[in-house]
Amino acid sequence: MKIAVDAMGGDFGPRIAVTGAVQAAQDFNLEVLLVGVEALIKKEFDRLGRAAANITIIDAPEAVGMGDGIFALRHQKRSSIRVGVQLVKERRADAFVSMGNTAAVVYVSRKVLGALAGVNKPALSLLVPTLKGMTLLLDVGANANCAPEDLEQFAVMGRIFMQQIMGLPNPSIGLMSIGEEKSKGNELTKEAFKRLQASPLNFIGNIEGKDIYSGRADIIVSDGFTGNVALKVSEGVVETLFSLAKREIMKNFFAKIGFLLMKRHLKKLYKQVDYSEYGGAQLLGLNGVCIIGHGRSSSNAVRNAVRLARDFVANGIQDRIREEIAKAACPAGEARA
Amino acid sequence: MKIAVDAMGGDFGPRIAVTGAVQAAQDFNLEVLLVGVEALIKKEFDRLGRAAANITIIDAPEAVGMGDGIFALRHQKRSSIRVGVQLVKERRADAFVSMGNTAAVVYVSRKVLGALAGVNKPALSLLVPTLKGMTLLLDVGANANCAPEDLEQFAVMGRIFMQQIMGLPNPSIGLMSIGEEKSKGNELTKEAFKRLQASPLNFIGNIEGKDIYSGRADIIVSDGFTGNVALKVSEGVVETLFSLAKREIMKNFFAKIGFLLMKRHLKKLYKQVDYSEYGGAQLLGLNGVCIIGHGRSSSNAVRNAVRLARDFVANGIQDRIREEIAKAACPAGEARA
Repeated sequence: MKIAVDAMGGDFGPRIAVTGAVQAAQDFNLEVLLVGVEALIKKEFDRLGRAAANITIIDAPEAVGMGDGIFALRHQKRSSIRVGVQLVKERRADAFVSMGNTAAVVYVSRKVLGALAGVNKPALSLLVPTLKGMTLLLDVGANANCAPEDLEQFAVMGRIFMQQIMGLPNPSIGLMSIGEEKSKGNELTKEAFKRLQASPLNFIGNIEGKDIYSGRADIIVSDGFTGNVALKVSEGVVETLFSLAKREIMKNFFAKIGFLLMKRHLKKLYKQVDYSEYGGAQLLGLNGVCIIGHGRSSSNAVRNAVRLARDFVANGIQDRIREEIAKAACPAGEARA
Repeated sequence: MKIAVDAMGGDFGPRIAVTGAVQAAQDFNLEVLLVGVEALIKKEFDRLGRAAANITIIDAPEAVGMGDGIFALRHQKRSSIRVGVQLVKERRADAFVSMGNTAAVVYVSRKVLGALAGVNKPALSLLVPTLKGMTLLLDVGANANCAPEDLEQFAVMGRIFMQQIMGLPNPSIGLMSIGEEKSKGNELTKEAFKRLQASPLNFIGNIEGKDIYSGRADIIVSDGFTGNVALKVSEGVVETLFSLAKREIMKNFFAKIGFLLMKRHLKKLYKQVDYSEYGGAQLLGLNGVCIIGHGRSSSNAVRNAVRLARDFVANGIQDRIREEIAKAACPAGEARA
């Protein structure tokens, strides 16, 4: 198996990506194609003191900054993102992993690879930590406008991911809404509720925002606008709480001592809720495998993202999605309006 | 001035509401109409040992539980919520304050009082604490489906509230969206962006979920579905973080000691982010003044909610909204499509 890894993505430059990719190639016995500025990648090899046998450098001389607009990409045919996605398209790689600008990776991969047959909209999905384990949220930002049918497809695709990757035989599916009753929600969710209820999926009803992190549902579907707001609000609350806590604690001597005693444990907690440590976000329903790690990823998170890409390919997720989407559209061979 | 207060609302029964209302009547020299089951209210008076001269009991024998669906209200003509709202309609009270079921208060007050002339949709607005002060979010749940024009009206109404109640001469207005650029968002927000930009309001552009609590904007407008999700997600994250922290801390002796030293300060922090301590949510654009306190409110929060109702009336917010909405519809006397 060959996994292409974007050496340029991430907030910390090529060091983290190269270190993580080399580690993954070794640990998982994979061939890794490192995509980026050749000279910079070689420099990192020198630093690591090992030129792994199963790693190839693919030169991509143009860099896309984390802050660059996606429009800059139109003219950058040789950015690491564009070259990496192209490798998947030409079947020279089985999957592409990037810690780069999420919007840029979504834009390029949808444009170059397109959707799997039968899929209306590839969805950006993300595993988030909850009180009980992990919950898959989708869509978290690829599609700002969705139809009820799209949300049903997200549920079908999320189910396959949770079965094949997380090993849940029959994951529960919730619909993000503003009340638990069927009658609550907007026009989109009310219609999606009916479709999900009529489907053979393990649909458990509406999930309110306050229950995302309680782990009530294994999968929560929403349009990409709502999902992105929910995710970004969560990030904002965590950051705000930590800075308010710091401000409050520094005012008092005993609280400061208390903080020092707890510090190591608070850090562990921060790591627990910081999803950059997990495998990454994945575009489900794309005609090619594409994993997007968080920009803040550590080299260990990069290694995990490569492992996720491997699992994605090894479990034949793409074929399963194609089959299940076709089945959902025509249950028992009958056409559905 | 006469303020009607729902004695039955809130998670802790009449005690909190009666105590807060009696305190408010005394501190702010107001006439308070306490609405609820007469015998229960009298019992609380006995406990307090004072029957304030400026308090009248209005009997409302039917109770609405915090968990009851709004449909139960159709047949409850004499619930404290229905009776309290009716007092405002008949101008026997200048405002109604309830700590009851938010959905029930929104439902009854919209049905009984309707919208102010020119207002499409009364919006539920809420002050939330930020790193810099307070930000007004609206709509946080009264209207799941909105048009771009509604969001512009929310901005106009929110501005009046922040000017008159919070004393900000020219509050900044943000639009909740999924990226800072104008091009980011869904169909609704892209259209609303254009309208807000063309308006004379102090519009500062899109606000991402992560920036709600940084205090970048004084007012953030959104449809009621998105606003409610954002608010509920915030509650969920705070609760989850506190329970994860507790779980992590209790594993270690030194961390436990640290926690004990910090406890008082963490409680202060919790209070700081717990918006039930603030005045309450208000329905802006309703044909009558209606303040909704959080169900978890303390008696001090009830007192604050009554003060907010007083300020609302004293500052003539209703007349200002009517005027400004008319002006927004026809700037400089011209009709607008």
